Amino acid sequence: MIGVFDSGVGGLTVVKEIFRQLPDYPVVYFGDTARTPYGNKSKETIIRYATEDTDFLLSHGAQVIIIGCNTASAEAAEELEEKYSSTPILEVISPAVKKAVSVTKNKKVGVIGTRGTINSGVYERKIKELDPSIKVFSVACPLFVPLVEENWTDRPETKMIARRYLQGLKTKGIDTLILGCTHYPLLKEVISSKIGARVALVDSASEVVKELQEKLGNFDLKTGKAGKFFVSDLTPHIQNIAQKLLGGKVELEETKD
Amino acid sequence: MIGVFDSGVGGLTVVKEIFRQLPDYPVVYFGDTARTPYGNKSKETIIRYATEDTDFLLSHGAQVIIIGCNTASAEAAEELEEKYSSTPILEVISPAVKKAVSVTKNKKVGVIGTRGTINSGVYERKIKELDPSIKVFSVACPLFVPLVEENWTDRPETKMIARRYLQGLKTKGIDTLILGCTHYPLLKEVISSKIGARVALVDSASEVVKELQEKLGNFDLKTGKAGKFFVSDLTPHIQNIAQKLLGGKVELEETKD
Repeated sequence: MIGVFDSGVGGLTVVKEIFRQLPDYPVVYFGDTARTPYGNKSKETIIRYATEDTDFLLSHGAQVIIIGCNTASAEAAEELEEKYSSTPILEVISPAVKKAVSVTKNKKVGVIGTRGTINSGVYERKIKELDPSIKVFSVACPLFVPLVEENWTDRPETKMIARRYLQGLKTKGIDTLILGCTHYPLLKEVISSKIGARVALVDSASEVVKELQEKLGNFDLKTGKAGKFFVSDLTPHIQNIAQKLLGGKVELEETKD
Repeated sequence: MIGVFDSGVGGLTVVKEIFRQLPDYPVVYFGDTARTPYGNKSKETIIRYATEDTDFLLSHGAQVIIIGCNTASAEAAEELEEKYSSTPILEVISPAVKKAVSVTKNKKVGVIGTRGTINSGVYERKIKELDPSIKVFSVACPLFVPLVEENWTDRPETKMIARRYLQGLKTKGIDTLILGCTHYPLLKEVISSKIGARVALVDSASEVVKELQEKLGNFDLKTGKAGKFFVSDLTPHIQNIAQKLLGGKVELEETKD
């Protein structure tokens, strides 16, 4: 099975892409909604949580792990790869970086994400590894996750906040913008309208699944339609956002640590 | 020592009131920043966390516990009182209710808080216990906590969001509004400007400390100036908000579970 974890339900946008691009593979999902969000927390805490999340997925049959959370990808991917060296681990950052580097023409790339992701500097570092001539402009947008979780994806307040976050990037003249958080694809329209329709948006959820597809031959994955969706805390509100993020019906199951 | 816990740093507004109203008593604070916020989580999870938070404070010398978090007060106060029957436990809801009931003239009271607090219906229930003729109007304002934590306390975006949250309450003609979340005192000006200056704002942090002061004779509390401030996850950003909330310098110390 393909295992996906996230700090909450945002990683379901990755599952949505798996269902779209790889409909023959079963998925086991874990959303750490009892401790969500990870975005403002420290590296040490995020590594501890990501390790627990991975253990959970492995114990539920995962054969490959996708870190469906940019914050955990930024802060904990290396530690997970080291600890679980016999399990393929994919993070959402490198595929988005690869895509952005191939797409940009004017070599000016923007990155938006949570405070944790942006402060880690991981996007900038990985972009520069592939092409040191690219200029990277990063902005933390901490209110985007709560706005998506309120389902305020096209409210005037959200547009106003998006304009404030993005106006600095706009003046830099970027031609490519990485959506460095799995919640942000739900704000694509607002973001595009504020940053300008000519700026290409790179969606990390979509890119990591393309990468998985390319590497599928290397893994001996079971096929089948099943999906299992676990969260560490379940409320009716979480159930609602989950369906919004996945774009379809989903039955979440609560699991205690 | 007076023990205060909260899901994060919001409960520091309670400590600020202790410093103001009871400057001779030492405080031990625990903010569960590794699992913050509690506001959108389930009752069972909140009870589990509140119990762990209380155990931590007791092991650090607390003789009386203030639940400095409306969500935990709403969801876990009864369970804590039962479990720790030999320790006085104060929650932030009843004192604010008492105040609001004594203040309202037209018997129309508004309550704002997190989704957890509002869904619990605890304010409405407690108000009706004191005066069944009072009409209670409640609104969840889930974006207020992230806005305070971004330090966006007087931005136009915040005013716009406040207007949207409060416009329904305004049409009801309330004359009293309970700020049912320890973060909200930092939004007092915005809230007052949107709900109308004639509406009395009741601040749960301030009221719970008045209640403690009245009951002080019953407790044999140590005096002294010391304050100890623990959080389960520490970042520079949390350190900054903490100072903003406390209105003064504070050294946070990180503790792992």
